[in-house]
Amino acid sequence: MKSIDMSVQACPVARSLDRVGEGWSILILRDAMYGLTRFDEFEKSLGIAPNILAKRLSELVEAGMLERVQYCNKPLRYEYLLTELGWSFRAVMLAFVEWGSSCLAPEGRAVQLTERTSGRPVRIGMVDLDTGRPVTNCDFVMTPGPAADEAIRYRFAYIENKRTGQASNLKFMHRVRTVVTRD
Amino acid sequence: MKSIDMSVQACPVARSLDRVGEGWSILILRDAMYGLTRFDEFEKSLGIAPNILAKRLSELVEAGMLERVQYCNKPLRYEYLLTELGWSFRAVMLAFVEWGSSCLAPEGRAVQLTERTSGRPVRIGMVDLDTGRPVTNCDFVMTPGPAADEAIRYRFAYIENKRTGQASNLKFMHRVRTVVTRD
Repeated sequence: MKSIDMSVQACPVARSLDRVGEGWSILILRDAMYGLTRFDEFEKSLGIAPNILAKRLSELVEAGMLERVQYCNKPLRYEYLLTELGWSFRAVMLAFVEWGSSCLAPEGRAVQLTERTSGRPVRIGMVDLDTGRPVTNCDFVMTPGPAADEAIRYRFAYIENKRTGQASNLKFMHRVRTVVTRD
Repeated sequence: MKSIDMSVQACPVARSLDRVGEGWSILILRDAMYGLTRFDEFEKSLGIAPNILAKRLSELVEAGMLERVQYCNKPLRYEYLLTELGWSFRAVMLAFVEWGSSCLAPEGRAVQLTERTSGRPVRIGMVDLDTGRPVTNCDFVMTPGPAADEAIRYRFAYIENKRTGQASNLKFMHRVRTVVTRD
């Protein structure tokens, strides 16, 4: 994915993946949300090679997801704390937990979200906040938003044409811009 | 991540990432959920090299997320359709959309979930299905579930010890099992 800078694409999925688009990064964020903060904690918890961990931590700091904070003077030591942006990723993490638990774990749940005060196991889902209805069904459909760029508008127009019948001869002509600069 | 088989780890996040743990795979699933099905559609939409696309599509088929289906006899052509498991990933995709839209897009929303019949823009969130409360705050905490393995129980016990005070001398001792076999 080197040649495409996801962070400048209008698509929010591409932009999200640019921040955390790699398995180790998401697992580091998982551990950070659980409460791990130190290099050796992440290293042992994940069984990750130190050089790869160092690289991923730097990337997460650069992406604004983690902050590197000194916690010891002698010897000089740093830990990695979630930023506000890092914490905001929690809903995505919970969506991963729910999908992995409900669809990929026939033996039962390995982790369980619980209400802190009561200990009640919590069933979670992605809903329409105004009606409480789950949004993972056919009643809901994605459409271009006000900030859609040309690539997104083309994609949705193409799919609408495909859905309504001219599928067999239709050619997807648009190629996404390749951008190498970063801001 | 070659030496660790995520699919046998108890953690549902690790298990989820084993299925789709790479940026291109999630973007392919995004396009599949929008309605793209054919190799050339994915290739042009993503601006991805054909050899990488072929590899990722094969992996998604092997992981049970996509199904390869013949749609033309002469010439022989195949398309890639989401399986039931692939569709079940939609909640994670919506969580990515919501995070990218609300936290990484100061210029506004590039895509918008809407109610199909009315066209109403839908605000989405991850909630406690029994009370309707958002679960992304401190009232909710992750705990080991009935199917937790030793590594998960150790991690939570360690974090609880760290939280309650013995942080400075505490060492994370557990190393996750490295497994090379696959089922």
